[in-house]
Amino acid sequence: MEVRKAKSLGFCFGVKRAIRLAQSKPGGITLGSLIHNPNEIARLKNDYNVDVCEEVSEVPQDSEVIIRTHGIPKDDLKKLYFKTQNITDATCPFVTKPQQICEEMSKKGYQIIIFGDAQHPEVKGVLSYSLTPALVINDIKTLQNQIIKERVALVSQTTKKVAEFLKIADFLICQCTEVRVFNTICNATFDNQEAARELSCEVDIMIVVGGKNSSNTKQLFSICKEHCKDSYLIEDETEITKNWFFGKKICGVSAGASTPDWIIDNVIKKIESI
Amino acid sequence: MEVRKAKSLGFCFGVKRAIRLAQSKPGGITLGSLIHNPNEIARLKNDYNVDVCEEVSEVPQDSEVIIRTHGIPKDDLKKLYFKTQNITDATCPFVTKPQQICEEMSKKGYQIIIFGDAQHPEVKGVLSYSLTPALVINDIKTLQNQIIKERVALVSQTTKKVAEFLKIADFLICQCTEVRVFNTICNATFDNQEAARELSCEVDIMIVVGGKNSSNTKQLFSICKEHCKDSYLIEDETEITKNWFFGKKICGVSAGASTPDWIIDNVIKKIESI
Repeated sequence: MEVRKAKSLGFCFGVKRAIRLAQSKPGGITLGSLIHNPNEIARLKNDYNVDVCEEVSEVPQDSEVIIRTHGIPKDDLKKLYFKTQNITDATCPFVTKPQQICEEMSKKGYQIIIFGDAQHPEVKGVLSYSLTPALVINDIKTLQNQIIKERVALVSQTTKKVAEFLKIADFLICQCTEVRVFNTICNATFDNQEAARELSCEVDIMIVVGGKNSSNTKQLFSICKEHCKDSYLIEDETEITKNWFFGKKICGVSAGASTPDWIIDNVIKKIESI
Repeated sequence: MEVRKAKSLGFCFGVKRAIRLAQSKPGGITLGSLIHNPNEIARLKNDYNVDVCEEVSEVPQDSEVIIRTHGIPKDDLKKLYFKTQNITDATCPFVTKPQQICEEMSKKGYQIIIFGDAQHPEVKGVLSYSLTPALVINDIKTLQNQIIKERVALVSQTTKKVAEFLKIADFLICQCTEVRVFNTICNATFDNQEAARELSCEVDIMIVVGGKNSSNTKQLFSICKEHCKDSYLIEDETEITKNWFFGKKICGVSAGASTPDWIIDNVIKKIESI
């Protein structure tokens, strides 16, 4: 099977930085998964004894804590400081940005609207920085039933699709006197998306590698599906099924921003051997 | 010929206000046409002796001056105050708004982008309030060749189409860190546009009445043309040609925001008699 790699795929700047920081604190603890990739989390545990706690209450007193790339809610951070002073902030700077915007804009009286998945840790973190009740919406339909103020500030979860973000912005522009639009969608995500879109148009089958709870991986998968109906989302090479490749000649490979190179390499080797 | 009037047409709030103000200052002078309708300007001259000067230099010392609905450039206003203190501001409040926004946003360091026709008096006025060089763009193509800063503020000429404004906003949102979008498109214009769109879908011929240099009238005409190929733009009933109505049953009538009722009535009478 011929394999073509997307021009841009895998680890983004924020994930690379977070992993470097976690590796520099062996024996440390992350509050929630550092990144959304179970295999890489297992490697950090294996090679660097970096553990995961799901709740602040579980974090041992005075332990070495690493804040996950997605950031954490403001209140959790406060509670954490009562437990330990050894905190390394691996929040992606592109996530810190919307957190700051929410704080500043809510202070200035703008209604905060966050385009994102309310259950995603990044969004929970960003939301916590608004000093006034904010709206989290995942699609334009949800927005249509809401009370919208005259002056709003709009931010996005970093991994959302630009086209959807623009639909939300357009809706608000028609409703409001002023909309402050902060395009907080991450370029790296965008580059991976563009490369995946391009590649998925020219192959017979498309494999997207990444965590199944990773927002940006799910976006990539949905883009590939649009252009190549035989698209599959896998976490690693063990999920590959030979049947998928029956009658196919060229296989495209893309990977989410939290997928390490070693997993991508394993996947490619496995496909090439088919 | 059966005539159907658009649900919303003709004079908007700002025009009604301006005419009321002009009529309260008989013998006054407007700097440029008060509104874009030659017939109504002729009536003001006839009935109230309200004259038009094209340049500040032509305005006689200490005369009674009425500022046109479209507003005038800041510098002209300054010069005018050296000539006379008898100034009545008939600038539409919906035009004063983008003037203030340009001043305030340019003061705060935002690059000002005005969506509008650079030759239109309203846009010349709005532009003059920006303290830094501003961009005036009439379509998205013009924007693509420009240097856009990280933080921009976007306003619109009051009579522009919302759909076009959103295209510009979307383009900027993809380019910039922050876009402050001020929807300064006038609702009255929008109501007339919606009513014209609706009506033009259900008639055989569409007559749009208004000044040929009136921006909102031209917009109405372009909307009608989209849905009813037999659409005509006229300034008054004398321009009506019988041939247009050959084989037609229902005629729709819309009118720009600066078209007085008496002209609309004359047009309808003429069509009904065909």
